[in-house]
Amino acid sequence: MAGYSASKEDLIKRLKRAEGQVRGIQRMVEDDVYCIDILTQVSAATKALETVALSLLDDHLNHCVAEATSQGGAVAEDKIREASAAIARLVRS
Amino acid sequence: MAGYSASKEDLIKRLKRAEGQVRGIQRMVEDDVYCIDILTQVSAATKALETVALSLLDDHLNHCVAEATSQGGAVAEDKIREASAAIARLVRS
Amino acid sequence: MAGYSASKEDLIKRLKRAEGQVRGIQRMVEDDVYCIDILTQVSAATKALETVALSLLDDHLNHCVAEATSQGGAVAEDKIREASAAIARLVRS
Amino acid sequence: MAGYSASKEDLIKRLKRAEGQVRGIQRMVEDDVYCIDILTQVSAATKALETVALSLLDDHLNHCVAEATSQGGAVAEDKIREASAAIARLVRS
Repeated sequence: MAGYSASKEDLIKRLKRAEGQVRGIQRMVEDDVYCIDILTQVSAATKALETVALSLLDDHLNHCVAEATSQGGAVAEDKIREASAAIARLVRS
Repeated sequence: MAGYSASKEDLIKRLKRAEGQVRGIQRMVEDDVYCIDILTQVSAATKALETVALSLLDDHLNHCVAEATSQGGAVAEDKIREASAAIARLVRS
Repeated sequence: MAGYSASKEDLIKRLKRAEGQVRGIQRMVEDDVYCIDILTQVSAATKALETVALSLLDDHLNHCVAEATSQGGAVAEDKIREASAAIARLVRS
Repeated sequence: MAGYSASKEDLIKRLKRAEGQVRGIQRMVEDDVYCIDILTQVSAATKALETVALSLLDDHLNHCVAEATSQGGAVAEDKIREASAAIARLVRS
């Protein structure tokens, strides 16, 4: 089971909505909609993905990391190094 | 015609790819893929959308803003205010 | 004269405040303040710098870019390419 | 002792450098340096602060969170909720 299993339904709902937003942006481009209105939608889709990422990360800390650190040792260190790298990618993206 | 008409095909290609990435993330969640691997894909999709936004903004400056400022006056000021607000939304998202 | 000459005083005030925030963060680290409280201050200082950047960019579009595009030609294109690159650095930082 | 005590010296060095960068940006504004060159420095200072934040967060996960989760219970949950909120602030700033 994945760390996010309790949020799975919510994550899929959010991702379907983000997919719909990205498809909507495609249609806007095809229909020559004004640049700024498209940019507003791109910002909204980016925020939606960010929310998905933060939710996944929270579940990851609460389950995978918490479990590993309760056992300690090298596995715990590895999990935290991995989580820190994922956080850095998010902050920098 | 929209400011991005010369990049239209490229924008749609990028957006189709981003849509595919978001759909791929959904499948990963459905298949209980490991959190960190999903997060990597979310960062990639976010970056893809950012690239779309920067391309749209560049076209907007090169066409809509450049045209308005070559005429000057209140329209030029409005266009720049609008562009600055869109940039702020991007930087903060 | 720089594009931001009308906002100069405001920019310096904001930068002095950001400098004070960064110095405050140093003291917090020296005093072993709790990590999360320091992180809150780092986010605040980052936002303060972002506001400075967005203000500079707005002035730049309103003056340097608007002036160049009102003349058109290669200079205008260069100015916009340069502005787009600066926006990309901000969005990705 | 704070979670970052082993990185304390390194953090202070980075913060002093960031402070110097912010002071340098003030001087650039005072000297009417070209907008784009200032923006480049603002992006650099923002990245420097981001690196400080990611380092603090990594230490926080490795020490404060790891310790709390090894004990489990409500304290562990609180620590993770707090860390997630700090990560969200960073990602959105």
